[in-house]
Parts: sequence; structure tokens; C-alpha cells
Amino acid sequence: MNFSSKLLEDAVAEFAKLPGVGQKTALRLVLHLLNRDKEEVNQFSKAITKLRNEIQYCKVCHNIADQPVCEICSSPRRDKSLICVVEDTRDVMAIENTNQYNGVYHVLGGLISPMDGVGPSDLEVDTLVERLAGNEVKEIIFALSATMEGDTTIFYLNKKIKHFAVSISTIARGIAFGGELEYVDEITLGRSIATRVPYENSLTR
Amino acid sequence: MNFSSKLLEDAVAEFAKLPGVGQKTALRLVLHLLNRDKEEVNQFSKAITKLRNEIQYCKVCHNIADQPVCEICSSPRRDKSLICVVEDTRDVMAIENTNQYNGVYHVLGGLISPMDGVGPSDLEVDTLVERLAGNEVKEIIFALSATMEGDTTIFYLNKKIKHFAVSISTIARGIAFGGELEYVDEITLGRSIATRVPYENSLTR
Repeated sequence: MNFSSKLLEDAVAEFAKLPGVGQKTALRLVLHLLNRDKEEVNQFSKAITKLRNEIQYCKVCHNIADQPVCEICSSPRRDKSLICVVEDTRDVMAIENTNQYNGVYHVLGGLISPMDGVGPSDLEVDTLVERLAGNEVKEIIFALSATMEGDTTIFYLNKKIKHFAVSISTIARGIAFGGELEYVDEITLGRSIATRVPYENSLTR
Repeated sequence: MNFSSKLLEDAVAEFAKLPGVGQKTALRLVLHLLNRDKEEVNQFSKAITKLRNEIQYCKVCHNIADQPVCEICSSPRRDKSLICVVEDTRDVMAIENTNQYNGVYHVLGGLISPMDGVGPSDLEVDTLVERLAGNEVKEIIFALSATMEGDTTIFYLNKKIKHFAVSISTIARGIAFGGELEYVDEITLGRSIATRVPYENSLTR
């Protein structure tokens, strides 16, 4: 693209580095910011710099937090004997929004993915093992994506922690609520028949 | 959404103000920035603040520029007797990319749109009239969107400038190159028959 201004070109190039943002979208966003008040634009860039410079990660569960220990880990009402292992903070938010979970979390910070060069040492694995060594934990729930990377990570972590006296579970996989059978893929449908649950159990949501 | 951090929430809220960016996309972009180096994030926000604070608009054509008069207006190789009237800088870039136009531009900064509260006084209309009063201009080309707002703006501007001794034209409307007739809407197809051009003329691209 032929930019009429170097400043404009630089700003567009920076926006285009964001995932899923191409040159045209970047230009649209930058022109939108140009039409906003200077004060608002300063607030925008300050919020980002401040986040990057001042963000903390909870010492216990490694979730994004404003304090050294996050609200969930420091809450007396959460069940510390139950740890849900997730990939990142988005998964914590998704599970919190269900209002169905009262335990604590452990944020791995990614999934094992040799293709992307992510190995176990890049994730918060050692600290998970340390938490289990404390004897307070009774159950571990793996709530990872149902992908190759998620399965690999569960396989690896399971090997690491199976000698502890904790029960290990993964979240249920099957047909989504509201899902129509004819549109479900074969693997999910096949597995959901193999891992069928007694009717009474399925009613307790 | 339940954010675990106020800093994160603020940054997401700022991103979600951008057009076409919802809460989920904003969160994805913000988490991406969190994983980047501090230096890179500072560069990102500095590029935006710098653009907003230091940007200039060309005194002649009102296009975005780094100097008081933009490169196109100050170039001795451009034909100053031909002015192309466009909505914003994106249109200038689009036309420049064709390499078919050697005149100069006039950037209105928007289109007349009563629905959005944009009237003629919000656009660079008076400065266009001033440019025409200088007697140097021979032709005006309206290259505005083929929408209600674009047509209204052309109608208004035409009334304002028709007493000057300049020829007034609009860019040609019709079937796009590579377009298949059966997918073209009725209005475009109907008008393209009514405004048909001699075969010889259609060959000179």
C-alpha cells in the first residue's frame, strides 16, 4: 500500500502485527483512532502499556492478577482440595462464568506442542507437582482443549502426577446441549455412546 | 465477563471500543500483547500516540500527511488542473494504487449523512470552492461511494460549483471487470445498458 504519511504507515504496521488483523483492517482501525479525541487515544495506549508493565501472575495458580495471590486462590470460600488444570486465563473466565465450579485453578500457560516448539519446560508443570506434594489436594480435573495438543499435555501430566494420592479426571466430552445428532462428527458421537452415562446421573446438572 | 485483573479489564474495554472488535476478540488481542516483549508493546502504543499527536493534514487537499503540504500536492509532475474529490485517505490510496491518475485530490473527510449527523459544514466544502475560484482547475472528478450518502454529497457539491467554468464528471459505474452478468444486481445492469459506451472507447483502459 502507498501511505501518504510515515506516521500512518508505522501505526498500521503495528496494528497489522496483531493476530487476525490484516493491512486493510489495521488501516480501518488506525483511521478510526485518528478521528477520536487525543485524550481517548492516549487512554487507549496507556491502558495497554500499563497492562504490559504492571501485570502480575498469581504465585499459586499463575492466573493473571493484580495482587501477588489472585482473588480465587485467596478466597476462603473456594475448595483448595480441588484443582482444575487449564491452558490460559480465558479458560478460567469461561469456567467461572458457568458458576458450577468451586475449586481452584492451575494455569499452565499453554499446551505441549512440538510443532510450535512448546515443551513441558515452557509450562507451569513443576509448580503443579509442588502443589500436589503439599497433601492438601484430593482431586485434579483436566479442563484442556479436545485437541492433539490438549491430549498430549494430559498424557504427560498424568504420568508426572499419577504417583500422588489424588484422583485424576478430565471434563466430560460428548454432544453439546442443544446439539443435533445428525451434525455431530463421528468420533464425538461414537465416543459418547461408548461413554454413556446412567439416565439419573445425566439429570443432575 | 469476569476478569481476574482490573488492568486486563481496562485494556480489553479499550480494544472493544474499536469498530468491529467485540469483547472476545479484544481479549484475544490483549492476551497476545501480554505475550509479546515489553519493548514491542511500548513501540505499539507509542506508534499510536505519536500518530494521533503529530499527524498533519495537507493544507491544500486535506489528505493525511507528514508535511504541511502533502507529496502529491507538492509534486511538480502532478496535473493541478484536475481534482479528484474523495471521501477519505483510503480512497486516495486506492486510486493511487491503480497508477491511472495523474491529477491531484481533494479529501472531503466524510460524506453528507443526515442520519449520522454529518452536514456540509463538517466536510471540506468551502476549501474546495476556494480552490476552484483560483481559475487553475479545469476538471473535477467525483470519486465517491455509489451509496445514498455519496449521491447526496455529489448533488450538493454540484450545486455549489456548477457556476465555475470547470467540467464536472463522476467515475464510471457499471459491471466490474471479471464480473459475471447473472450475479450483477438489476440497478447496476440496467444502468450499464442505458449508459453503454461505444466499443472503441471501452478498449482504451
